[in-house]
Amino acid sequence: MLTLSSRGQLMPSSPIRKLVPFAEGAKKRGTKVYHLNIGQPDIETPEPILDAVRHSDFKILEYSHSAGNESYRRKLVQYYKKHAIEVTHNQIIVTTGGSEAILFGFMSCLNPGDEVIIPEPFYANYNGFAVAAGINVVPVTSYIDKDFALPPISAFEALVTPKTKAILICNPNNPTGYLYSREEMETLKQIVLKHNLYLFSDEAYREFCYGGENVSAMHLPGIEEHVILMDTISKRYSACGGRIGALVTKNQQVLDTVMKFAQARLSPPSFAQILGEAAVDLPDNYFDATKAEYLKRRDVLVKRLNDMPGVTCPNPRGAFYAIARLPIDDADVFCQWLLESFSYNGQTLMLAPASGFYGTPGLGKNEVRLAYVLNVNDLNSAMDCLQQALKEYPGRK
Amino acid sequence: MLTLSSRGQLMPSSPIRKLVPFAEGAKKRGTKVYHLNIGQPDIETPEPILDAVRHSDFKILEYSHSAGNESYRRKLVQYYKKHAIEVTHNQIIVTTGGSEAILFGFMSCLNPGDEVIIPEPFYANYNGFAVAAGINVVPVTSYIDKDFALPPISAFEALVTPKTKAILICNPNNPTGYLYSREEMETLKQIVLKHNLYLFSDEAYREFCYGGENVSAMHLPGIEEHVILMDTISKRYSACGGRIGALVTKNQQVLDTVMKFAQARLSPPSFAQILGEAAVDLPDNYFDATKAEYLKRRDVLVKRLNDMPGVTCPNPRGAFYAIARLPIDDADVFCQWLLESFSYNGQTLMLAPASGFYGTPGLGKNEVRLAYVLNVNDLNSAMDCLQQALKEYPGRK
Repeated sequence: MLTLSSRGQLMPSSPIRKLVPFAEGAKKRGTKVYHLNIGQPDIETPEPILDAVRHSDFKILEYSHSAGNESYRRKLVQYYKKHAIEVTHNQIIVTTGGSEAILFGFMSCLNPGDEVIIPEPFYANYNGFAVAAGINVVPVTSYIDKDFALPPISAFEALVTPKTKAILICNPNNPTGYLYSREEMETLKQIVLKHNLYLFSDEAYREFCYGGENVSAMHLPGIEEHVILMDTISKRYSACGGRIGALVTKNQQVLDTVMKFAQARLSPPSFAQILGEAAVDLPDNYFDATKAEYLKRRDVLVKRLNDMPGVTCPNPRGAFYAIARLPIDDADVFCQWLLESFSYNGQTLMLAPASGFYGTPGLGKNEVRLAYVLNVNDLNSAMDCLQQALKEYPGRK
Repeated sequence: MLTLSSRGQLMPSSPIRKLVPFAEGAKKRGTKVYHLNIGQPDIETPEPILDAVRHSDFKILEYSHSAGNESYRRKLVQYYKKHAIEVTHNQIIVTTGGSEAILFGFMSCLNPGDEVIIPEPFYANYNGFAVAAGINVVPVTSYIDKDFALPPISAFEALVTPKTKAILICNPNNPTGYLYSREEMETLKQIVLKHNLYLFSDEAYREFCYGGENVSAMHLPGIEEHVILMDTISKRYSACGGRIGALVTKNQQVLDTVMKFAQARLSPPSFAQILGEAAVDLPDNYFDATKAEYLKRRDVLVKRLNDMPGVTCPNPRGAFYAIARLPIDDADVFCQWLLESFSYNGQTLMLAPASGFYGTPGLGKNEVRLAYVLNVNDLNSAMDCLQQALKEYPGRK
């Protein structure tokens, strides 16, 4: 018998994957399924940036530089400058999605057995990259009753061990939509300095802030060597399939090390670098319409949720996710029941049980994540379904 | 002081990278540099497949399925069928280049500390993926005086330990151009069965065989569960920048495990999947012209090399690389000298020292790898340079 690796067996399945067959079953029965479970935006990719690819006229689809095309990296310097992030093109390594930036960061900075502290609930795939790198995720809990604010310094300090090498934040946050305040970022800075940690900052949703100031980890003076920015164009320009991201840092040793991983895999995808480069030239008001749309959706979603008896949903100030607490016994069971046993006017909805976003077993059991990637009409119809479902669900509490 | 990971420090630099500043220096001095050091083909990417991307008309650049678009995987089934490889679309996981297929294979099948035996000289980036996965490459030497034939069974058996989990071959071979015979493949099958090993088979250059039969690892009955095919469209269609490859196996456990790694990174690049899908519909004679061109180049290169006094170059029967032994003290020194201190009619050439392709320290010291990715005229000019250089080089032996 051939054996699999231990990490292969430890590798988590997508927390939503087990629900997919039930969604397919519902569709086969003729039930319309509203997908609030995924982070694939329905916003159209801006035509000018798709056209940049479609009108490209090179003859050979060549490897790019392992760090990404220099022209693209120089363009990204301009992009970051608009966000008051001052970096040179040599401090940017273009990656295959934000995913690869996370993996390269883990691989370069942490040894197997080392620990990274992550406020939970967190993006579930961090677990996957941690398993691939052999490192341990140590969750520090943020609470729905506190709107998922950054846990206090004492909660972090209680978790720091000699194995702790980094803190990872996602800001604005997936899955909570929370936007860290300047004070919270200053708190992180203190912890990072005191314990000599890396600060990994996943800022995939930078543009999608509603009413609050977006403080990048790159805005914190005095921890330049500690900060590793993990970025992606996926959500920013509705370009998830491009698989283009970036790792940005002022730490030269880290850059040199990440570069070796980047060289081993040769180069990031060429087509989507063209798209990413064109995206920096989109008019500054490009995000206005998209943000206005998301804001409208958020307002509808959050109001509809909080109007349902027993439901709590903090108002997210960023990204396009919200976590809601439902008056139910078990969100995994409920989400499956929605697809398997429920419909309302021939419709139902698919949600992501929040348990998959917590590192601490047992947490998030009555919470779900909702991605507001549907238009307001569809969102309202989905909320009609949820409202009715909560009345009918046998496991209501 | 922030620390880097041990694997980050172990991670090898590209063996050619240290020569790049010298090549840039030569160009700044006005010397023309013939690049025989890289595997970037100069063959144009077929226009119909670039057009497939350029004429695409989707509105949202979405994530694809984590295993790749089903339509592409079904098309790949047809592609493999033409090569007498019978697989279903569920036995194919589309990867981000062949690179990711190698990494996923290592990650899924081997534990840190486990060993993979690879005939040396071998593709240098295997080292990088091995370091990333924490596994050990155990080289089994093939010799230039034996045309880089597969080492005998006894040489493999001498290296098998309880930690040995796999053998990795590249066929046709980069960097030697060697094409394994049916007898050699049968030998591998015996070793794999006897010691219960995986057989990783990198078949990136499948189409580029000159006069010999290409026996895929997937053609060997009785070891279906052992074989993991690592593939890529990079060289096949001159589409290196697309970053599309595939991991193919009939081992369901491996597929399930690899799929979890694939889900964590969400999806392979979407644009180049369109290109890859269109490529399967290229006329069957598409490779004829490309192969004829490579064959012509190989013949020129090998003849020119062997005509030089003291130079040995076995005739490669596949891929587009050759390894030559030169009458010199040290290929690393020689390759740098070519760029730094030599020119002939205002021209020089860049070669890859072969030492970077050997796992055993000290081997390949007087060998270089040449990629015949230049047209015959340029190749001849490069050989003129080399011939002259070998006369002038102070470290000649």
